[in-house]
Amino acid sequence: MATSRWTAAPARTASPRRRGAVLEHAILDAALEQLGTVGWKGLTMEGVAAEAQTGKAALYRRWPSKEDLVADALVSGLPRLEAAPDLGNVREDLLALCRQVRQIMFSRPGIALRAVIHECDQLHTERFEGVIVGNVVEPTVELLRAVIMRGIGRGEVRSDAADGYVLDAVPAMMMYRSKMCGSEWSDRELEEMIDRLMLPLLRPYGA
Amino acid sequence: MATSRWTAAPARTASPRRRGAVLEHAILDAALEQLGTVGWKGLTMEGVAAEAQTGKAALYRRWPSKEDLVADALVSGLPRLEAAPDLGNVREDLLALCRQVRQIMFSRPGIALRAVIHECDQLHTERFEGVIVGNVVEPTVELLRAVIMRGIGRGEVRSDAADGYVLDAVPAMMMYRSKMCGSEWSDRELEEMIDRLMLPLLRPYGA
Repeated sequence: MATSRWTAAPARTASPRRRGAVLEHAILDAALEQLGTVGWKGLTMEGVAAEAQTGKAALYRRWPSKEDLVADALVSGLPRLEAAPDLGNVREDLLALCRQVRQIMFSRPGIALRAVIHECDQLHTERFEGVIVGNVVEPTVELLRAVIMRGIGRGEVRSDAADGYVLDAVPAMMMYRSKMCGSEWSDRELEEMIDRLMLPLLRPYGA
Repeated sequence: MATSRWTAAPARTASPRRRGAVLEHAILDAALEQLGTVGWKGLTMEGVAAEAQTGKAALYRRWPSKEDLVADALVSGLPRLEAAPDLGNVREDLLALCRQVRQIMFSRPGIALRAVIHECDQLHTERFEGVIVGNVVEPTVELLRAVIMRGIGRGEVRSDAADGYVLDAVPAMMMYRSKMCGSEWSDRELEEMIDRLMLPLLRPYGA
């Protein structure tokens, strides 16, 4: 999995002649840093500019508003999902994929994203929930589909299992138990979910 | 299902000599009314007292704080789950139960409860999420368990299906799709979830 840019070295020592992508990265890093320290409500374009050792104009040229900047910073900081695991059986593939999702959920940008959604007003909620859907949920569902299709090909999984409701079960459970039970999804819990929920759900007819 | 007290007639015309349970109900109704008009942040003990045509002292004698009053008002206003449906087969029972859950989620107090959780600060979030867990999620899971146990008894459901992960699948999916896709869970979506997710998950081994 690509590592988060959150932990990159601060840009404080960068040359004042930073341009283009280099300056943009420094600003996005500074925005994530500010989000971690002062939160969504405390974050200002001035504060981010100061943290990135640049001027406010450099920010407004790229992002018309604070929410545009924060959305970009979160997207750029979130770990990316790797390709669909291909470990020879659906149980190991699902486990490997769930571990990747857990890593994103509990990355610093992942935690910050949930905090922003809680802190921002209703008007912005939809936008930041869209960041979760587009950058975590949808890619997860696509990889789940690939894992399940391979299981169907091996005869391990019933032929009609690549269904939207089945594919949503993993992200739904991970979100629900994290929110409602405070679960951090230990390896054991992930295994239990696969063994007690997903494998009985996916087993071929007659099995 | 018991109807919500939210829609009860306002207490404005009540006698000034209201006492005990009558006065308490009038205050709880006034709190729900205020929640619907000014929201969590706008709600004050003074405002609720005025709405209920009583004094602040009558409120503080019963609820030491705004959050205690609002939590009680939400709990008292939420529709209650009926007994577990018993319609002769697991598909119809699950559908009937899901329709009850939907009715609670989209009742005015159910909507207000989600709005309060979004509006209140982190300190109070846990308390109001506890209201959902204790008054919606846990009762739902218990009724699901009863429905599934009856299905096991009829040989319709595999014998090890009354498992925590299986029981969480319905509330997890209902919360997830409502939050992430804005789903209002039409009858058709409920049927699809039962037919594509729950029945394949519950079917006996060998089926």
